[in-house]
Amino acid sequence: MRFLIVGGSDAGISAALRARELDQNAEITVLLADDFPNYSICGLPFYLSGEAPDWKSLAHRTEFDGITIHRGQTATGIDVIEKTVSAAAEDKKIVTHPYDKLLIGTGASPVTPHIDGLNLPGVFPLHTMKHSFAIHEYLDSAKPRRAVIVGAGYIGLEMADALAHRGIAVTIASRTPSVLPTVEPAFGEAVAKELERHDVAVFTSVEAHAISRAEDHLHVFGSGGFEQDCEMVLVAVGVKPNVELGVAAGLKTGTKGALLVDRRMATAIPDVYAAGDCVETWHRLLHRYTYLPLGTTAHKQGRSAGENAVGGNREFGGSMGTQVVKIFDLVVARTGLRQDEALREGFSAYTTENTSFDHKAYYPGANQVRIRVTGDGKTGRLLGAQILGSWGAEISKRIDIFATALFHEMKVDGLGDLDLSYTPPLSSPWDPVQMAAHNWSVALNSEQMETTCRK
Amino acid sequence: MRFLIVGGSDAGISAALRARELDQNAEITVLLADDFPNYSICGLPFYLSGEAPDWKSLAHRTEFDGITIHRGQTATGIDVIEKTVSAAAEDKKIVTHPYDKLLIGTGASPVTPHIDGLNLPGVFPLHTMKHSFAIHEYLDSAKPRRAVIVGAGYIGLEMADALAHRGIAVTIASRTPSVLPTVEPAFGEAVAKELERHDVAVFTSVEAHAISRAEDHLHVFGSGGFEQDCEMVLVAVGVKPNVELGVAAGLKTGTKGALLVDRRMATAIPDVYAAGDCVETWHRLLHRYTYLPLGTTAHKQGRSAGENAVGGNREFGGSMGTQVVKIFDLVVARTGLRQDEALREGFSAYTTENTSFDHKAYYPGANQVRIRVTGDGKTGRLLGAQILGSWGAEISKRIDIFATALFHEMKVDGLGDLDLSYTPPLSSPWDPVQMAAHNWSVALNSEQMETTCRK
Repeated sequence: MRFLIVGGSDAGISAALRARELDQNAEITVLLADDFPNYSICGLPFYLSGEAPDWKSLAHRTEFDGITIHRGQTATGIDVIEKTVSAAAEDKKIVTHPYDKLLIGTGASPVTPHIDGLNLPGVFPLHTMKHSFAIHEYLDSAKPRRAVIVGAGYIGLEMADALAHRGIAVTIASRTPSVLPTVEPAFGEAVAKELERHDVAVFTSVEAHAISRAEDHLHVFGSGGFEQDCEMVLVAVGVKPNVELGVAAGLKTGTKGALLVDRRMATAIPDVYAAGDCVETWHRLLHRYTYLPLGTTAHKQGRSAGENAVGGNREFGGSMGTQVVKIFDLVVARTGLRQDEALREGFSAYTTENTSFDHKAYYPGANQVRIRVTGDGKTGRLLGAQILGSWGAEISKRIDIFATALFHEMKVDGLGDLDLSYTPPLSSPWDPVQMAAHNWSVALNSEQMETTCRK
Repeated sequence: MRFLIVGGSDAGISAALRARELDQNAEITVLLADDFPNYSICGLPFYLSGEAPDWKSLAHRTEFDGITIHRGQTATGIDVIEKTVSAAAEDKKIVTHPYDKLLIGTGASPVTPHIDGLNLPGVFPLHTMKHSFAIHEYLDSAKPRRAVIVGAGYIGLEMADALAHRGIAVTIASRTPSVLPTVEPAFGEAVAKELERHDVAVFTSVEAHAISRAEDHLHVFGSGGFEQDCEMVLVAVGVKPNVELGVAAGLKTGTKGALLVDRRMATAIPDVYAAGDCVETWHRLLHRYTYLPLGTTAHKQGRSAGENAVGGNREFGGSMGTQVVKIFDLVVARTGLRQDEALREGFSAYTTENTSFDHKAYYPGANQVRIRVTGDGKTGRLLGAQILGSWGAEISKRIDIFATALFHEMKVDGLGDLDLSYTPPLSSPWDPVQMAAHNWSVALNSEQMETTCRK
């Protein structure tokens, strides 16, 4: 059984490893467009900050027993009748690979916004090792003193942290009214403060229009009179799925142009699976497909695809949009739906915020944690949560308690029944997660009582 | 409605607060034997270590709006017909308190082992504020240079850390073959190493027999020729439920002599509830009662009792024995059943251990985390987990992912479907929890395949 995988990032490698694990006889081949299998895209900001100085460390393994990896082969076409994939090698020669089962894991590419001057030297996207080498080389040779980052999502903010870490004066220009729009504005504002505390200038509701070159620097123009001189511009305004290969083979696309797949990660073409940033993502709460390109999701989808390719029957469990980011000393995490998302989906959404210490205040190093809980006011069901607090306050694994609760469709009130761990240096007898849940229930009750009284 | 609560520690205060929250008209009264409402027993080691120098900080609140607290009143009897509780005030006068609903939250007391010389000056138990004041006073006045701690459970080990923090040479004498017997010996050994790394001498399988007084020091004798000079002995070998008040009123006791209650925390006497360290604890996995005196449990039981006392109908969700402890720079956590416990309960228990980094190795500060997963080899059901790693590696909230999974009777294999958070400074695309779960499944499969082949 020949299992051919196009793409050697999260989805592709996870699929290969899972297939290898389950089927000792499968011939597993990965076609890799570049030279970097299993690389951590999420790690690029830390390579560029200097915190992970050796780019080789971004992949802890690049060779896998029993998995053939062809580097520098860009897949150019799928013959779904003959069951072959043609690929252009680096010398432009076309190679043909037969398959019994195929996985398309072609990933995503940075969205190119409508900004004049994107091709000027010193202007970069960041999504691949190649991009990061170009940026690294530029940082070393041109020694930029000032950088403008267009976009205030995860990558934009991590790069603000990274470049500030290198002593570069950073300005962020965000199209959205608050930074990190995946969390509610109340938290976005706290993130902006953290950025400013580290001398990053933050401009929101700014649409970047043009970049021009002056003598020895770049000039960025944007809406509302935004103007900023710099020696470097980083554009990080999201990604779009790489679907050309799949579409040319006859596959249909859906949300944001991503490939359609079922929950087993099978496409409409027999024996062809697709996974990762190139496909639509089943959303566990919404019970429909969305586009949520995340490494965690790609790994899970790839693992399901790999299992199914060798005869298994595993559904992807679904995403709940769980995400976390560290920006300087702050960690912000979310899972499920925000208030606005939940309202849009027709829930009787109700959101409260609670502040408590991450551990007992009498034990040194206690820090305040802000937790926003969104639930359905009618059914009491938990819909989502967001947490903001300092690095070291176990924010990331606290959001995972909510994520696990959401997975099981718990009610907000039920969180208080969870037997969570406690010791004074690490929590309270009611974990902050539970205090926030209790607070939601009490606030909802008193609101409902007031409403009843007013009637 | 008069809601009377005997005991103002975790269960009592939680009950009072919940009743207050739900019923604005209830008259809520707490009888407190000592002078310290709402005190964190779990915090005593940190007060004694000097890390929380002000004992007053161990209770963040001692007054509660709408809750009457009578200090220094020890309940002496319940008249279940007249519905009154008599209490001895500090001047020995007997006061009588009427109730409509009563909660017994009398807690637990340290077990007194059979050791000669326990009443010598310099020998202490540790369970109440009074004990900790006595120890504090002794530390200040006698300035002990050497201490022996009898018992290697949570309190014993936290006190070893605390006294070492003060520069005292500590020796632990543990009756069990490994320290921290609530986790498996493999982890107990790692804890012993951490203790020894901080110059704490650890003796296991030692039964302390006698303490005697020499001129200016104490002498502790134990089995296997154990002998140790010191200026201070701390005895921490567990607790027993305080049930005299309840038993005198006619209540029955069960496991380890704790009061019988139903899952609503009601006793067999009408309108009398009981909660906290004085009662049996419903175990969610075992579907039967056990004795697991923990602050987290006491809070939850108290909250249920308080809700039911004012007309609610809330069951205690059950304990899974989730616990965590920090010892020097190490954190050890557990939830559910260990291999030996699961076998004893009739499960086809299977346990594996997996080691991974707490976050991406390329990001600074990555530390190894050891995770032991116990599941049922026949059904695949998750039964328990233990985690050991460094302080700061989010061990505590990682065990809570397992605890939340156990709450929902997940299979080990299902953990891989959880949408957990990831960013390189805080985790991996597969969280260590998920890597450990995957490892369990793979190891089980290959073991089962081997077994099949051998057949």
